[in-house]
Amino acid sequence: MTETSSNPGVVIDDPSDERLAVFMGLRDHKLRQLRERPGGDMAGSFIGEGDVVIDRALRSGHHLECVLVDRARTEKTQALDLPSFPDTADVFLAGPDVLQKVAGRPELRDPIACFVRPPEQSAVDLLDASRTVLVTEGVNNPTNMGVIMRCAAGLGIEAVLFDPTSCDPLYRRAVRVSMGEVFSIPHARIDHLPQALSSLTEAGYATFALTPDANAEDISKLRIELTQKIALVLGAEGPGLTDETMAACDRRLRIPMKAGVDSINVGTAAAVAFYALGQARG
Amino acid sequence: MTETSSNPGVVIDDPSDERLAVFMGLRDHKLRQLRERPGGDMAGSFIGEGDVVIDRALRSGHHLECVLVDRARTEKTQALDLPSFPDTADVFLAGPDVLQKVAGRPELRDPIACFVRPPEQSAVDLLDASRTVLVTEGVNNPTNMGVIMRCAAGLGIEAVLFDPTSCDPLYRRAVRVSMGEVFSIPHARIDHLPQALSSLTEAGYATFALTPDANAEDISKLRIELTQKIALVLGAEGPGLTDETMAACDRRLRIPMKAGVDSINVGTAAAVAFYALGQARG
Repeated sequence: MTETSSNPGVVIDDPSDERLAVFMGLRDHKLRQLRERPGGDMAGSFIGEGDVVIDRALRSGHHLECVLVDRARTEKTQALDLPSFPDTADVFLAGPDVLQKVAGRPELRDPIACFVRPPEQSAVDLLDASRTVLVTEGVNNPTNMGVIMRCAAGLGIEAVLFDPTSCDPLYRRAVRVSMGEVFSIPHARIDHLPQALSSLTEAGYATFALTPDANAEDISKLRIELTQKIALVLGAEGPGLTDETMAACDRRLRIPMKAGVDSINVGTAAAVAFYALGQARG
Repeated sequence: MTETSSNPGVVIDDPSDERLAVFMGLRDHKLRQLRERPGGDMAGSFIGEGDVVIDRALRSGHHLECVLVDRARTEKTQALDLPSFPDTADVFLAGPDVLQKVAGRPELRDPIACFVRPPEQSAVDLLDASRTVLVTEGVNNPTNMGVIMRCAAGLGIEAVLFDPTSCDPLYRRAVRVSMGEVFSIPHARIDHLPQALSSLTEAGYATFALTPDANAEDISKLRIELTQKIALVLGAEGPGLTDETMAACDRRLRIPMKAGVDSINVGTAAAVAFYALGQARG
């Protein structure tokens, strides 16, 4: 986004304008996630906020449908001092009433963009193309999912498979927290854990459950052949993995922790585990 | 907190009741932090919220001054179904108007407790008693500070020194995010970085700056003598360490990262670095 956009945009001051439909209900996190799921009325879209995220989405080839910006922001700068939005995108210059309805306040710092959701990737294809993958079960907190996607991209995870009880990595808050790194790491929905673990085994993966259980293997002692495919299986903070999924994994790994401290935040535990797996390959 | 409290509490329904003073202004994060600083009018207190945090604060010997609970919660359970607060603490059973003023909503799930702030610890004492410490510069986001304190406690950091531009580890949000682990790790305020680094050197510490700079040493290649004292010096996400502090450190370390990903969240970077330092000691 080195140039200023040539897309002049269209002013929208009426909060009931139909073109704003995709930006409505952003603050009802649960409902919004349901609507963006497969089968939902917004299943074809995802939301990205802020210049960094929008830039990374565009660079990674996502199609921008429309973007909402604060009209006052463009007026203040005299020119349309905005990222270089494609000419094919609708740029909505929103007035204070519109922003109040969408964002709950009459001004907006970060543009809110609506992108076409890319076609679902096939888990089988991702497994073929990768050597180290992450599988999540019940990681339903969008902030944690965003932290995990950002670390995964930086620390050598090549693909993420998420179960139906995990947060959609393209959900707005997860995208934002990931700083747009979610676009650099392929991810696919899997229908059911622990059943999906058998597909992993068939594809040649060793499956490692991450757990705080003191009886599990110390991840720092792990040694992995360079060519061995591995899947790290991660549950939510608190409940952790279900008993079924834990039992279906080949091995159980723990991060060595000081006595008396039972666990660390799931995002930081994931980061340490990603790093440790990289080290285990030597 | 295995028993029910014998402390019956006192009902407060008037939001202007003077006994509520310590609970006022909780939602103005910046002002509250200023008021709790040395020299501030609330410098003698800190706030802890929720059963886990309050329990851990009590177990680690902190003195509970007073605690605010939702009156409706106690009425619903017929008995005072609350943690076992010491008899010396004032238990305020707050009505909806009080809760609205304090918490911005008329009900309260987690009790809010005000503790006596323990005396400031001496950095010199902490350095004498430790082998691996963390020094923070400009880590001013309370959530990040909380995540870092929780990881530090779990991953072998024995003490934390924080500079005046870092968040107070006993600030409410940091305490909450740390899940009360902040009480298990000694911490001390240092007046100025990079000057304080010379005290570390005098005390026998090797100082390691953490940086995303690709020219820094790979932390995974680090080997440390078992008895070598080390201080990891950590800056804020975004700006990182100041040039002066960076220059004053003995060595600069980076977490090995996939090409194209510039950095990960400061909390997760800290966690990986803590783990890697533990491994470097072998």
